[in-house]
Amino acid sequence: MDDELLAKGRDIQGQLWPQVGSGPTGAFPAAKLAPDFYRYVAESAFGMLWSRPGLAIRDRSLVTVAQLAALGKNDELKAHLRGARNLGITQDELVEVLMQTAIYAGVPAANAALAVAAEVFEVD
Amino acid sequence: MDDELLAKGRDIQGQLWPQVGSGPTGAFPAAKLAPDFYRYVAESAFGMLWSRPGLAIRDRSLVTVAQLAALGKNDELKAHLRGARNLGITQDELVEVLMQTAIYAGVPAANAALAVAAEVFEVD
Amino acid sequence: MDDELLAKGRDIQGQLWPQVGSGPTGAFPAAKLAPDFYRYVAESAFGMLWSRPGLAIRDRSLVTVAQLAALGKNDELKAHLRGARNLGITQDELVEVLMQTAIYAGVPAANAALAVAAEVFEVD
Amino acid sequence: MDDELLAKGRDIQGQLWPQVGSGPTGAFPAAKLAPDFYRYVAESAFGMLWSRPGLAIRDRSLVTVAQLAALGKNDELKAHLRGARNLGITQDELVEVLMQTAIYAGVPAANAALAVAAEVFEVD
Amino acid sequence: MDDELLAKGRDIQGQLWPQVGSGPTGAFPAAKLAPDFYRYVAESAFGMLWSRPGLAIRDRSLVTVAQLAALGKNDELKAHLRGARNLGITQDELVEVLMQTAIYAGVPAANAALAVAAEVFEVD
Amino acid sequence: MDDELLAKGRDIQGQLWPQVGSGPTGAFPAAKLAPDFYRYVAESAFGMLWSRPGLAIRDRSLVTVAQLAALGKNDELKAHLRGARNLGITQDELVEVLMQTAIYAGVPAANAALAVAAEVFEVD
Repeated sequence: MDDELLAKGRDIQGQLWPQVGSGPTGAFPAAKLAPDFYRYVAESAFGMLWSRPGLAIRDRSLVTVAQLAALGKNDELKAHLRGARNLGITQDELVEVLMQTAIYAGVPAANAALAVAAEVFEVD
Repeated sequence: MDDELLAKGRDIQGQLWPQVGSGPTGAFPAAKLAPDFYRYVAESAFGMLWSRPGLAIRDRSLVTVAQLAALGKNDELKAHLRGARNLGITQDELVEVLMQTAIYAGVPAANAALAVAAEVFEVD
Repeated sequence: MDDELLAKGRDIQGQLWPQVGSGPTGAFPAAKLAPDFYRYVAESAFGMLWSRPGLAIRDRSLVTVAQLAALGKNDELKAHLRGARNLGITQDELVEVLMQTAIYAGVPAANAALAVAAEVFEVD
Repeated sequence: MDDELLAKGRDIQGQLWPQVGSGPTGAFPAAKLAPDFYRYVAESAFGMLWSRPGLAIRDRSLVTVAQLAALGKNDELKAHLRGARNLGITQDELVEVLMQTAIYAGVPAANAALAVAAEVFEVD
Repeated sequence: MDDELLAKGRDIQGQLWPQVGSGPTGAFPAAKLAPDFYRYVAESAFGMLWSRPGLAIRDRSLVTVAQLAALGKNDELKAHLRGARNLGITQDELVEVLMQTAIYAGVPAANAALAVAAEVFEVD
Repeated sequence: MDDELLAKGRDIQGQLWPQVGSGPTGAFPAAKLAPDFYRYVAESAFGMLWSRPGLAIRDRSLVTVAQLAALGKNDELKAHLRGARNLGITQDELVEVLMQTAIYAGVPAANAALAVAAEVFEVD
């Protein structure tokens, strides 16, 4: 483990999810079962890749939302829709991304992603 | 948007789901968040493709059920199992399609699809 | 291994691919590496499932083509497009199935499947 | 159907899930809807493949857990995590397999699998 | 078919791929087999969705590249990497998107996408 | 970047692929386009996860082969089949893993993986 990488990763996580300070807090069951995994994610995904200067964090967030919707990873999508809003991406932009998902991943993937978004954006 | 395409799409949706008249009614959260998307689906998926004369609607329904089961899109599968029954495809035929899914998409995909079917066909 | 299941499976394979008599002949590299696997497929997939009476073989072929296209399994799709034609499903019907795949699995899956079909149907 | 294959399959299922004697009991809705499917799985998946001598059952269990996690088939994963523990694979080994899934199938697949594991291993 | 939608779609395709004027020209085998499909894609995917004002075309291109890489649709990815460059997205930004794909879709998806990009960007 | 992680990762890569000394050499086009990515993989995938003591490297190799086959990542599968053989896993064990893949990911995934294996094991 590497404290410098962890600090860089926590900084990115804090921009995406300022409410929780520095990302996942370790209080959920999977984090109790495998605490090293969540440290690994902070160090590698956020500390090694998201923190790189070659692409704006706003763009990283947008493409992450798009990929999670396309892959049907809807729990993770929920967290990243919140992160995208915290970075200033508008609700309308996110809806357009999810609608367009129908072209590349099919209508059911877009449907499911929009249902998740309706929950995150508190539309009912 | 195109009213002629919409009418053609609504006609197909009405054959699949006569109970709801003309498909999704716009009353669910995702349809409130992205009403244009559900109009897009009616116009493009149903108005432009399902309405084409080159394949019987019964066959379109059968292959849709098969694809949704293979892809693990089980919410959509539920709606299309109902649609297939409304078009006269028998419960036994649908069970055979879902069993055969094990060959091409694996046993877990077939298992999950049969669980959805048991719910739709009210077997408990 | 079970000779009765094998005979039932070989009968189905012979209807799909009469040119090769009874399906894969064991002459390709993977069949030399794992001959038991191809006997397993003949006995289980064809002998135990495809041979069941509850769904017409023409319908089994149609849904198989649809699933392979949706899953992007394009080598297998090629063989099953040939099988479908041998069972009397028309080229136009198969093109409609592949076009409709765009709705449920996305445009790229349909594109790739149509490219395979153009090869099988010798359109160039 | 083939009683000898069924007996071989039931024997394997009994090693994975001794609590239920011989695997799925037929008491759940999908098994009522499609009883032949669960007999098919016992005969083909367990009787024809898992029972083969060329790979230790412990290794078959480990690779099954890995594949289900990678494919996001989390209901089936739950059953096979239990099976793996019954065969003597340790909780720590299983956590390592699920963590490593992040490399090949992405972090969201590993996250979801670890959440399932936390439930199976009663970590909360 | 709808000439107004077609014109809107062709306009977007022309921005992505100015070299070919207005997107796929109908000269490849799949377009000869299923000409209606390519008109459908121009009208629905490009005319109905990409042409919407709620998201910048540069962002639509970026999320499309990201989704195609995540889904492993590498033929389509090649075309859209070219489109992205034509819209002014830099090579470095695209490499960052593809590297980040490793987090959400796994390292093999990122590897394959980078191999495609090396070809498009003529790195050898 | 972190030299200690890199050294740990290179050590694992050297066990899997002793012929190339320490894994990918940076001489292929994607490595020229994105050299940081291949360093990232060495540090994170191999240095942070594969190097952990909780699971034998032989088991890590076996589950990696299984996951790549299930996900249809056949280029990567080729490299890891070679790695598995270098770690002492037998050809017969690997064939059993790939055959069993048919249960969880479908017959086409197993077929494609066996074709790759026939190439790696030089069966023709």
